[in-house]
Amino acid sequence: MMIPPAITLGIDLRVLAEAPDSSAQMAHTQVGDYRDVDSVVAFARDLDVVTFDHEHVPQHVLDAVVALGVPVRPGPHALVAAQDKTVMRTKLSALSMPMPKWAVVSDAAEVGAFMARVGTPTIIAKTPMGGYDGKGVRVIAGAEDISLWLEKGPVLLEEKVDFVAEVAQLVARRPSGDSRGWPLVETRQKNGVCAEVIAPAGGDPRLAEQALDIASRVAKELDVTGVLAVEMFVRASGELVINELAMRPHNSGHIFTELSHTSQFEQHLRAVLDLPLGSTALRAPHGVMVNIFGGVNASELAGVLGLDPHLKVHDYGKSYRPGRKAGHVSVVGDTVESLLAMAQGAVAQVAIDGLA
Amino acid sequence: MMIPPAITLGIDLRVLAEAPDSSAQMAHTQVGDYRDVDSVVAFARDLDVVTFDHEHVPQHVLDAVVALGVPVRPGPHALVAAQDKTVMRTKLSALSMPMPKWAVVSDAAEVGAFMARVGTPTIIAKTPMGGYDGKGVRVIAGAEDISLWLEKGPVLLEEKVDFVAEVAQLVARRPSGDSRGWPLVETRQKNGVCAEVIAPAGGDPRLAEQALDIASRVAKELDVTGVLAVEMFVRASGELVINELAMRPHNSGHIFTELSHTSQFEQHLRAVLDLPLGSTALRAPHGVMVNIFGGVNASELAGVLGLDPHLKVHDYGKSYRPGRKAGHVSVVGDTVESLLAMAQGAVAQVAIDGLA
Repeated sequence: MMIPPAITLGIDLRVLAEAPDSSAQMAHTQVGDYRDVDSVVAFARDLDVVTFDHEHVPQHVLDAVVALGVPVRPGPHALVAAQDKTVMRTKLSALSMPMPKWAVVSDAAEVGAFMARVGTPTIIAKTPMGGYDGKGVRVIAGAEDISLWLEKGPVLLEEKVDFVAEVAQLVARRPSGDSRGWPLVETRQKNGVCAEVIAPAGGDPRLAEQALDIASRVAKELDVTGVLAVEMFVRASGELVINELAMRPHNSGHIFTELSHTSQFEQHLRAVLDLPLGSTALRAPHGVMVNIFGGVNASELAGVLGLDPHLKVHDYGKSYRPGRKAGHVSVVGDTVESLLAMAQGAVAQVAIDGLA
Repeated sequence: MMIPPAITLGIDLRVLAEAPDSSAQMAHTQVGDYRDVDSVVAFARDLDVVTFDHEHVPQHVLDAVVALGVPVRPGPHALVAAQDKTVMRTKLSALSMPMPKWAVVSDAAEVGAFMARVGTPTIIAKTPMGGYDGKGVRVIAGAEDISLWLEKGPVLLEEKVDFVAEVAQLVARRPSGDSRGWPLVETRQKNGVCAEVIAPAGGDPRLAEQALDIASRVAKELDVTGVLAVEMFVRASGELVINELAMRPHNSGHIFTELSHTSQFEQHLRAVLDLPLGSTALRAPHGVMVNIFGGVNASELAGVLGLDPHLKVHDYGKSYRPGRKAGHVSVVGDTVESLLAMAQGAVAQVAIDGLA
């Protein structure tokens, strides 16, 4: 999804992809393993800047690219907070960011101590690295639920936040420091995975102000470059609590392709190239994005596009895999309820797995 | 520019390009000559549908693709009216479309007879085929100005229309007959080449109605599929007169990428694939597009994007050539005058040739 704005801006985008049939349909695709220093260094050697569409590139690989003199944006020192949830909690706690109660535990005694301190019947356990979309995350009632994880190393425990909504604040930041945020969006999860996004998020306008302030401060203090997504819980009291960070264009920002003057992909490219950032103002009152899971049933494309001329279908060109994010439907307009019903209807029709 | 919406819609776009370094940055680019039957047939054999980004593919090449059983959209029977200006004038006159006075002439006597009939001191001479952007078009005072053209074959003569404005009406039409137009735009030519587009065109709203009616009828009667651009003159009386046809996304429609819910490139793909057409409603009150001629000075990109966060720069990725359309700047907002000044300022800065 970064290719279209790269074409528009005349940016010569090179893609290091895992396989030739990956969804990166570019002339300048090179096949290689992002975990292999030699592959990444050979790929990056002649580039002006290196960036990512996921955060799983190991630190030692990133360091090797930095050692070449090629700018890596976001830099390894920033990206580590999106790679390692323990680092994220530690750094953000040091910045007094609003957080759930948390601890890093190594054995059953420490689990018990944390549970006693938090005082809620259930807590969340997370493996520090490698989790996403609900993987590596578990609701636990006690240490016995994570005995295998504890054998492998420290585990992050967090208070299970009692929330009334989940929101995401996206900002983009240039190396020169300039940053710009989009309006706050509401994310609706199903089975631990983002299924729907409502933009802008409803409710008290002060919430949006606070969220933008939090995300802008995180971007600045962690020295993030490119797009930063800060996923947050909203407590019944209205308090925001940081859940996760992503340092790349993020599922919660797809709606801005249609809803904002500048998509998250264009803005990410502008930011990592240190170009002036585009307007993030909205071009319609509301927008709704609904994910397509499993695969896109291409034979239903005509039927779905025929539902409404404002509907947009994004097909990621991926082969079917149960539960995979294979595309999304977005629509902008005046009334959230009707937009959501329309997008859900479209996804129910075009998604091989049906609605999440 | 058709690649981004193809990526979004999950359409596997294959490009037959003249050279590997052409601006079609796709994995699926095949190099070949569009005038060579064998190259085009080999390219087209396994495709679901064939379309174009220019109208210079010879009829016998198109016929060979049709003979394969591969749909060609627009079909050769429609496209001929965009290839041969004499065919266009003949077909549109038969449909009683509003036209300048015209004649096909073969010698000086016929030139004289036409000039006597029209009664204006100057007329326009056009070679029937191959002209574009002012090439193959000449203002003449008499037969002596086109003696070399007449030696090669018949020449199209047209009344030089005294116009107050030039406009373009774009519509897209599906094989199933459904069609949808964008709002009328005003085009401003410099040296016979479109330099600026103002959208929507100002003036009497009835003009826009008439223009949409004309273009929709042309699309239907000529059985055009895909995007049709009808360039028209506006006489002082308010009468519209058809100047040229293009059957593909057209320079006058670039502004719709930002201004409309559906870009002309997305709509062209939908139309030629017989998918339901997208909304052509505007997403801002006004938009302005200014062409970049010669080449894009990439070192000025940051400066230009810094002028205003709503400015969009489209760099076609072409090498420098004097007068070449190398990109464009577009901006949408509330006031035509300020948008135009902003876009002109941006182009003056980023265009290697400066403002046209």
